[in-house]
Amino acid sequence: MALQQTKMLKQEQQQQHREELPTSKPTHQLWGGRFSGQPHEALQALNNSLPYDARLYSDDLDASKAYAEALKRAGYLNSADCDVIVKSLELIRFDWVERSIKFLPSDEDVHTVNERLLVNITGELGQRLHTGRSRNDQVITDMKLWMRKANRETLGRLRLLIEACVLQAEQHLGILMPGYTHMQRAQTVQFSHWLLSHAFALREDCLRLVELRERSNVMPLGSGALAGNPLGIDRLWLAERLGFSGVTANSMHAVGDRDFVVDFIYCCSLVSLHLSRLAEDLILYSTQEFDFIKLADGFATGSSLMPQKRNPDSLELIRGISGLITSNLTGIMMTIKGTPSTYNKDLQFDKQYCFQAHDKLAQSLDVAVGVVSTMQVQRHQMEAALSTDMLATDWAYYLVRKGVPFRMAHHYIGRVVALAEQRGVGITEVPLGELQQICEAFGADIVSVADYGLNVQQYNVVGGTATVCVLEQLRQLKDFCMGLCKQS
Amino acid sequence: MALQQTKMLKQEQQQQHREELPTSKPTHQLWGGRFSGQPHEALQALNNSLPYDARLYSDDLDASKAYAEALKRAGYLNSADCDVIVKSLELIRFDWVERSIKFLPSDEDVHTVNERLLVNITGELGQRLHTGRSRNDQVITDMKLWMRKANRETLGRLRLLIEACVLQAEQHLGILMPGYTHMQRAQTVQFSHWLLSHAFALREDCLRLVELRERSNVMPLGSGALAGNPLGIDRLWLAERLGFSGVTANSMHAVGDRDFVVDFIYCCSLVSLHLSRLAEDLILYSTQEFDFIKLADGFATGSSLMPQKRNPDSLELIRGISGLITSNLTGIMMTIKGTPSTYNKDLQFDKQYCFQAHDKLAQSLDVAVGVVSTMQVQRHQMEAALSTDMLATDWAYYLVRKGVPFRMAHHYIGRVVALAEQRGVGITEVPLGELQQICEAFGADIVSVADYGLNVQQYNVVGGTATVCVLEQLRQLKDFCMGLCKQS
Amino acid sequence: MALQQTKMLKQEQQQQHREELPTSKPTHQLWGGRFSGQPHEALQALNNSLPYDARLYSDDLDASKAYAEALKRAGYLNSADCDVIVKSLELIRFDWVERSIKFLPSDEDVHTVNERLLVNITGELGQRLHTGRSRNDQVITDMKLWMRKANRETLGRLRLLIEACVLQAEQHLGILMPGYTHMQRAQTVQFSHWLLSHAFALREDCLRLVELRERSNVMPLGSGALAGNPLGIDRLWLAERLGFSGVTANSMHAVGDRDFVVDFIYCCSLVSLHLSRLAEDLILYSTQEFDFIKLADGFATGSSLMPQKRNPDSLELIRGISGLITSNLTGIMMTIKGTPSTYNKDLQFDKQYCFQAHDKLAQSLDVAVGVVSTMQVQRHQMEAALSTDMLATDWAYYLVRKGVPFRMAHHYIGRVVALAEQRGVGITEVPLGELQQICEAFGADIVSVADYGLNVQQYNVVGGTATVCVLEQLRQLKDFCMGLCKQS
Amino acid sequence: MALQQTKMLKQEQQQQHREELPTSKPTHQLWGGRFSGQPHEALQALNNSLPYDARLYSDDLDASKAYAEALKRAGYLNSADCDVIVKSLELIRFDWVERSIKFLPSDEDVHTVNERLLVNITGELGQRLHTGRSRNDQVITDMKLWMRKANRETLGRLRLLIEACVLQAEQHLGILMPGYTHMQRAQTVQFSHWLLSHAFALREDCLRLVELRERSNVMPLGSGALAGNPLGIDRLWLAERLGFSGVTANSMHAVGDRDFVVDFIYCCSLVSLHLSRLAEDLILYSTQEFDFIKLADGFATGSSLMPQKRNPDSLELIRGISGLITSNLTGIMMTIKGTPSTYNKDLQFDKQYCFQAHDKLAQSLDVAVGVVSTMQVQRHQMEAALSTDMLATDWAYYLVRKGVPFRMAHHYIGRVVALAEQRGVGITEVPLGELQQICEAFGADIVSVADYGLNVQQYNVVGGTATVCVLEQLRQLKDFCMGLCKQS
Repeated sequence: MALQQTKMLKQEQQQQHREELPTSKPTHQLWGGRFSGQPHEALQALNNSLPYDARLYSDDLDASKAYAEALKRAGYLNSADCDVIVKSLELIRFDWVERSIKFLPSDEDVHTVNERLLVNITGELGQRLHTGRSRNDQVITDMKLWMRKANRETLGRLRLLIEACVLQAEQHLGILMPGYTHMQRAQTVQFSHWLLSHAFALREDCLRLVELRERSNVMPLGSGALAGNPLGIDRLWLAERLGFSGVTANSMHAVGDRDFVVDFIYCCSLVSLHLSRLAEDLILYSTQEFDFIKLADGFATGSSLMPQKRNPDSLELIRGISGLITSNLTGIMMTIKGTPSTYNKDLQFDKQYCFQAHDKLAQSLDVAVGVVSTMQVQRHQMEAALSTDMLATDWAYYLVRKGVPFRMAHHYIGRVVALAEQRGVGITEVPLGELQQICEAFGADIVSVADYGLNVQQYNVVGGTATVCVLEQLRQLKDFCMGLCKQS
Repeated sequence: MALQQTKMLKQEQQQQHREELPTSKPTHQLWGGRFSGQPHEALQALNNSLPYDARLYSDDLDASKAYAEALKRAGYLNSADCDVIVKSLELIRFDWVERSIKFLPSDEDVHTVNERLLVNITGELGQRLHTGRSRNDQVITDMKLWMRKANRETLGRLRLLIEACVLQAEQHLGILMPGYTHMQRAQTVQFSHWLLSHAFALREDCLRLVELRERSNVMPLGSGALAGNPLGIDRLWLAERLGFSGVTANSMHAVGDRDFVVDFIYCCSLVSLHLSRLAEDLILYSTQEFDFIKLADGFATGSSLMPQKRNPDSLELIRGISGLITSNLTGIMMTIKGTPSTYNKDLQFDKQYCFQAHDKLAQSLDVAVGVVSTMQVQRHQMEAALSTDMLATDWAYYLVRKGVPFRMAHHYIGRVVALAEQRGVGITEVPLGELQQICEAFGADIVSVADYGLNVQQYNVVGGTATVCVLEQLRQLKDFCMGLCKQS
Repeated sequence: MALQQTKMLKQEQQQQHREELPTSKPTHQLWGGRFSGQPHEALQALNNSLPYDARLYSDDLDASKAYAEALKRAGYLNSADCDVIVKSLELIRFDWVERSIKFLPSDEDVHTVNERLLVNITGELGQRLHTGRSRNDQVITDMKLWMRKANRETLGRLRLLIEACVLQAEQHLGILMPGYTHMQRAQTVQFSHWLLSHAFALREDCLRLVELRERSNVMPLGSGALAGNPLGIDRLWLAERLGFSGVTANSMHAVGDRDFVVDFIYCCSLVSLHLSRLAEDLILYSTQEFDFIKLADGFATGSSLMPQKRNPDSLELIRGISGLITSNLTGIMMTIKGTPSTYNKDLQFDKQYCFQAHDKLAQSLDVAVGVVSTMQVQRHQMEAALSTDMLATDWAYYLVRKGVPFRMAHHYIGRVVALAEQRGVGITEVPLGELQQICEAFGADIVSVADYGLNVQQYNVVGGTATVCVLEQLRQLKDFCMGLCKQS
Repeated sequence: MALQQTKMLKQEQQQQHREELPTSKPTHQLWGGRFSGQPHEALQALNNSLPYDARLYSDDLDASKAYAEALKRAGYLNSADCDVIVKSLELIRFDWVERSIKFLPSDEDVHTVNERLLVNITGELGQRLHTGRSRNDQVITDMKLWMRKANRETLGRLRLLIEACVLQAEQHLGILMPGYTHMQRAQTVQFSHWLLSHAFALREDCLRLVELRERSNVMPLGSGALAGNPLGIDRLWLAERLGFSGVTANSMHAVGDRDFVVDFIYCCSLVSLHLSRLAEDLILYSTQEFDFIKLADGFATGSSLMPQKRNPDSLELIRGISGLITSNLTGIMMTIKGTPSTYNKDLQFDKQYCFQAHDKLAQSLDVAVGVVSTMQVQRHQMEAALSTDMLATDWAYYLVRKGVPFRMAHHYIGRVVALAEQRGVGITEVPLGELQQICEAFGADIVSVADYGLNVQQYNVVGGTATVCVLEQLRQLKDFCMGLCKQS
């Protein structure tokens, strides 16, 4: 049985990797009094969350510092002891920053590590810190502290991307291009109008994140394992101390609630979908056939076989990664589905989902900022792609203005287009006489409806593609970014 | 080739089902001038959205009435004509309500039907209504109107469920039960505290829906196909007329944006997950082994084979349906992923996802309200399930109060539990002498930490399970429901 | 409270819809002896699976006929009684076909309806049919019978699509086009080679379905509710009678197993992804910018606003629907996740997932067959899109044949491409002298590597794009389709 | 702007981590001749697949060795040169094993690294290896080689778990327990029958993996970037050399096909769902209320707050991780959806999905093997949970044997159950007289239908819970495991 052998080999290797072995009782585990042995290695491998939650070390220390003070206020620590704990926690933070911490096999998670280190430094004193606290309320508090920063950083990246769009849109104001629906040429629009359409989707993403930040900024600490805290801890003081705007209202709800994590992953997923659509547009516009956009060399890559290739890998990665980010949403929802209330170990996976969604989105946004900032706008190719069939709607409006009901006008122009296509010419080349055979309302002035630029300026209601509207959009987005800047 | 035959057969059948056939040109389709034939039946089958979007008929008529007035204000309709259109639209609504409308094969969607009916009534006049409008901006406007109502109804159902929890929690105040984490007995809590923990998750759902309602209440109408409106339509007036708080800022973004649908489905999914957790708890509590809850006969069903069975089908359906509701979220996100910007036909599926999520959640909530309202709380069984090992945490606090560091106290009590278990007795049955061998701090007063009810009352910080805290929770939830009531 | 009123209204309406009311005991429900009332209407709404499972009526009757015979063989029915039951079941089938069956509110599902109808016809005799059987084993048996047909039909549709690809590939053999990777022109390929690449993905789908058909063709009937059958039913005989190749091996596994449904939905999802990629290619090739493919009018649609539009809705629907089909996979997996073993009501949703995946895929395949069969191949545009940079790889091979290591050759040609691009010319226009400055190995014979058609013929190993290879692919696919035909 | 600063800081750090810097041209990248600069760091971060694909190093070397020989056979390498390459590749493998390889910033992936190292050793010679090959066909070949091993290992782990079930089932043959449907007591079954029901689900998983192994064992190498190979490489020889049973049939299909990866992830997901159901059963059976199963200390963990807790973390992790594993399926399907045919960079994420699904499943299976092997079966508690209402079905069969139609018998027993429940007694305690009032067919011999053990033995058709059937199941599973062993 080869597998069996591999397994034994693996065990031996792991044995060697263990740098220190627990020798005294109680072990470094936070529990164990009633257990006769250590967890099995297979369980340790699956259970060990340190590779994921180690990044919470700083939030865990912050929350512990505040909790020590709360214990002091509740009379469970005297001032001197509390000071020692607080200072020791700062020493531990220093070790994390310096990467000088060695993990033990018995370290289940970041909370275990931090408490173990504290006890190493302070002895019995450190064993008092966890009084009235459970990892159940501790870990969510840490996550909420972490997420406050992650939310802010994500907002920052979104702002940079909006700003990159704004900058490009401003610099290329007035450039016309075909606007597409169904990937078919539809009506003439401004390049800037198209680019800002993506920025507005991102603005919504920002709003979602801001709402989430405010809605979820309530502190779970003090919920204990599930029943609350019986030591008179002042949760409101503690919340203020940690920058929360309030406290959770029901301890059983608090310890089993991961909605704020699901919400955040959802926000990330939606951003990633927006980026996937931007990427799809840009990949399309970067084909030799469209050629509207040229990616900077720094955001294109080559082929190992075909020397001429210049591939938009950056954009394909952004498009593809939306699947990865979104799958974290499916994953966490599926993990939560059907679990009983309060804390169940299944919830531990929240961190893997959350961190992956966050990190991948950060990478994706960084690349998107770079692509948009450095891409070259091929004005000539865009304007060369405008074709007379794109005037069709405006020709229909011409007939409407002559009194023809729109639905009939639409039908007549449809026939003009079919006729022109049959002849292989543009609609502007169909002789007036023939136009009039299709609809009597055509007059010689139809030639005036042939300037793409003039047509564009007619779309001047709020949100339209006329220059005045695009300028207004630029103003709105700049104000919005300014507002975001001030908040953070 | 059997398939081929089946197919031909199917074609013939469909032919017979066609009640009227288009005879004149232009057909009832909203387009077609440039096309030489009708869409293929296979495409019609896939493309036909009437089975889904017919429910938007009323919103479509509302939006059309307002749009007719906007056309009048912009000078494209005179007052009399506008009146005729508005009144005719009301006649059409009547026919919908009376279910007297017959669909034609050429009816692609609810917009086509409504315009066809209008033209039937008003002739050429009706052909003027679509001036400057596209189905692209029309359908999202309809959806937003529909969703405003759906959002409100969902809030209403959530409120009913919160109220059902509140009522049961109030009626059963003071009943103790084991609180579980990891499905293992953890600490004593009040039954009401447990039930309200679910209500607080639902409160968050309400907040999410309210935020969504406000964030998405901006009108897309006037965005045209993608470029905006060139006829000087007053979008701000139109928005106010339709109850929107603003207008979309970029027409290309507006016509391709389905975020408000995704957001709504997300909210529904999260609610369904909360219901799945409630259901899991209740299924568990309804087993013969727990027996904490007895479902009313109206919410249980029997077996076709086993006469004694009384199955919690209602709860299993609620638990299982969360997969169905959530799958709509995955589906719409996957459908949107990688589509180019503006409108693509893929987006048409938004309605199937949205309506299924909404409808199934409504059914699920209705059942949940019924289950919670009618379930019988088995006080005796709950309190009989309290066991002395659940005092362990409070015993640890006892030692803490005697000066033992918590981590040591935890360890000592763990050993007490192991000892008791080994002997097959409760921890309260371990003689004081032996307790003191484990930890000297044990005193005769340990007997005082043995009353489950007294222990519960110590958990009296905000969010705890003490009666004072549960009363505060009840107050909060009632106020919240009151607030919701006033809003809607 | 508007909601309350709506609800009462709804109740009244439902009351009116009830065509018959149960008057005698036992009711038409298959259970109820121990219940004091009917299920609540909210539960009935959620529980009622008739809208979904009614389509199983015929499979249910087939299985019941066979089960009646099995009861006869086991001595629980005499010959005459068995005959009456079998004939009555055929009468019921006739009523289903004629659509003359009226459902009662107490009809939970298709099994209830069929047993009720049987009892209506045969009285007490019909009440003997369910002896030793449970809906648990009955419904999976029905599903397996249904799926056998659905599998075959799906295979039939896949075959039609492969055949459509084969036909187009054969008719257009020899047409060249740019082959793309990363949506960038890569190397010249044959149009037929490209089209067949999609056919080969579909061939894999067929293989998957065939494997599934064989693996899952084991009969669950005789597993009872969960413990098996205590009446000596001959399961092996029954399996043979119903066309199964074996019987399930463990009754508790059998009644809780939905893997065959998940497998089928998975197969459908994967097909839908393949169609989404075909659709993406064709949408791209149908843009005005590429213009390689022209959809038939029957598979394009127009715009309500823009008269010139000819949108590839058929393809966008195929692309978008892959999200819908795949979401059923996510849904059923999420529904199953974490359920206890054997039957739980959650599993009832399997049918909604399965039927939607099947039906939507059928529509999608029908449209794909139509699109591929009728699309117009624009040879001129394809060949006009070949550009000299696509010769780069073959130029590198030219250098390799002169002894230059491939990696260096790749590098040199890269520089040639950069130089040509800088000058705005094709690589064939770079003078020999300058080529030799980049790499001495260039000779005058480089001009011979400039014929796209000749280059294509060099790719003649198995699977390549040379004509000889494409012909071999056509042969393989035809044989495969022939084989499929014979099987079904 | 804090973000900007963080970013600059990050850049500097990365600078320091770069151990070697590229100094000469051509760089170590496999492309670049036509590029003016290096990829931007943000793109490198997103594009770098080394953290994921490094584990393919050995497969990459194997495929390269075979490819070198194929080049020799095609006349592009002489024997001596080929030998040098082959031996150098072995040297590189040694360095990987020794972990002595340093990555450069320009190392995009494992292929780049291996080629760079080869060129380091062999100079110009190594630059010849990639002749006619592309990373497109190379990476899928590597993945297929890797997956062959992964498939075998997963089968091995599944076999261990089946064997663990078989062992426990054998050792505890004859123990009775309540069989549950809907988590309600249904009928008496054997503990072994229940445990084997899970083993049979795993057997299906094995079959799926075996089918996949055979279906996907065709070699893509020789497909080049997309058009095939123009150098007369003997693909059939190469396939045999690498242990494939055939070659892919169309090069464009081959390079864009990831179905074998999706299939594998699907198989892993389904296994994880089966494990989640096993876990749910065991979590339930481990509650204090059921108490059927006692987890070994090595597979339970404690609480940081509550000293008495013994939590089934191992099982909760198995249950929860099914969401993580399955999310990889959703992710890869979403990533593939709508991509154009052939290779697009989006496909690069296949490895992240695949490796995570594989690795997490491996951990999950290891824990499951441990849990099942070491769990303690609480015979007494199981048998104490049998209650007389579970005899109801057998009582109905009793009446059937007396000639009562089953549906009536079911109804009568339902009434008996209701009566007994009302009185708070078991059905065996209802006096015969009262039974006969409900149904005359009751006789004094009803007392004989009261032995749970005897009843169980009646369920003796194939798949039933009688001992003879369970023994047959054990035989089947052992044979199956034996067969698996021989294959691998």
